[in-house]
Amino acid sequence: MSDKAIVTACLIIIGNEILSGRTEDANLAFLGRQLNELGIRLAEARIIADDEAAIVEAVNQCRRRFDYVLTTGGIGPTHDDITSAAIAKAFGVSLERNAEALALLDRQYLKKDQNEARLKMADIPAGATLVENSVSRAPGYQIENVFVMAGVPKIMRAMFDDFKDRLKGGEKVLSETVTVFISEGAVAEKLAAVQARHRQVEIGSYPFVRDGKPGVSLVLRHTDAEHIEKAAADVREMLGDLGALPAKDLDG
Amino acid sequence: MSDKAIVTACLIIIGNEILSGRTEDANLAFLGRQLNELGIRLAEARIIADDEAAIVEAVNQCRRRFDYVLTTGGIGPTHDDITSAAIAKAFGVSLERNAEALALLDRQYLKKDQNEARLKMADIPAGATLVENSVSRAPGYQIENVFVMAGVPKIMRAMFDDFKDRLKGGEKVLSETVTVFISEGAVAEKLAAVQARHRQVEIGSYPFVRDGKPGVSLVLRHTDAEHIEKAAADVREMLGDLGALPAKDLDG
Repeated sequence: MSDKAIVTACLIIIGNEILSGRTEDANLAFLGRQLNELGIRLAEARIIADDEAAIVEAVNQCRRRFDYVLTTGGIGPTHDDITSAAIAKAFGVSLERNAEALALLDRQYLKKDQNEARLKMADIPAGATLVENSVSRAPGYQIENVFVMAGVPKIMRAMFDDFKDRLKGGEKVLSETVTVFISEGAVAEKLAAVQARHRQVEIGSYPFVRDGKPGVSLVLRHTDAEHIEKAAADVREMLGDLGALPAKDLDG
Repeated sequence: MSDKAIVTACLIIIGNEILSGRTEDANLAFLGRQLNELGIRLAEARIIADDEAAIVEAVNQCRRRFDYVLTTGGIGPTHDDITSAAIAKAFGVSLERNAEALALLDRQYLKKDQNEARLKMADIPAGATLVENSVSRAPGYQIENVFVMAGVPKIMRAMFDDFKDRLKGGEKVLSETVTVFISEGAVAEKLAAVQARHRQVEIGSYPFVRDGKPGVSLVLRHTDAEHIEKAAADVREMLGDLGALPAKDLDG
């Protein structure tokens, strides 16, 4: 990759329902792409249970290791929403009823349907800065380099939109994908030679089978478009020599 | 949960393409459900890059902490497939050309289209036991409590099918889902009271919005059907008192 420092992020997905297979996560791919647009590399993701000790440990390990940590899930009104209490514990601060968050909730429910459980969504770790939720008001928040979001995709996206200007990215990673019908095994040796000639460019190989025919998508990634183009030219020449037929990239 | 020991597993998904958002993981939900059928709780999942240090660290952390570790991805023929070398390093063993794996690959390619890159798929950490791949032959393997699988979902499923009899589960976690149209905030307080009366049963609350109407799925989990039924009766009575209308569970 580039010589400039790479800015990294880790996503912590909090929720028993993802681990049990009940719900499929719909946030990771979105955030991976969005962060890359900002010049931030999603370097790891963890999916953990609604368990205080697990949340505290994951947050404390990851906030020290990555430039940014994003969490999703567990900030609703019910008894199983324990993320905010765990985040407060991870940072060694108290969980406090936040006046600004309270005002947002009051506005949402017009005081007519307010209750103690809903007020729980105004309990925010001390020292955190709120993240706006344009969908359903109850806010997320930022504490140091950790951004805490809801798990519902529509709300998560609104929250990410609100705080993304606070993130400082590095250079954006660009990519080019070359997709052909050929088996990965048939291309592997020559591809390794191309990779050896273009060490800075990260070349990923992703096999697929379509209509019974083996194919492969070769994804070239670097922050410099010129580096990518030179390596891609070599990849295309190599594939031409092997007689591989072009195919459509359905994933990229 | 039950008094009996809970058997746990961790899934390590290896692949830059998942983190970049290029490819959506299709294995986690399947494995979460399958493991539960065997009485094993998927307690954590990590998604990490194709990076040797990251793989070594995740495997060594997780194999000591969980009863089983499953990995997906990075065992193909190309230069970016580094999982097996990293697993060997994690266990402090050598990566050896495995005679049994070699025979499988020879059979697949009938020696006509064999090449050094394909042979790389026969390089297996010393001491590992092979896992059969009924789709495309190139095997996975087990080393101690770690099971190494391909990332392509069809192949991953075939491999899981082959080794699942080697896993020793505990009691299977049963679940019952009650889905109604009501906002999570309106149900939270009374639900917490039900949870307090049925401490052993894990009650999860998953909100949704359908046709503009807020709803919630309440998922009750325990190894004992009778415990679930008693708690579910309380949940239904509570929801009836609140006037919540039944809805269809679209996720479960």
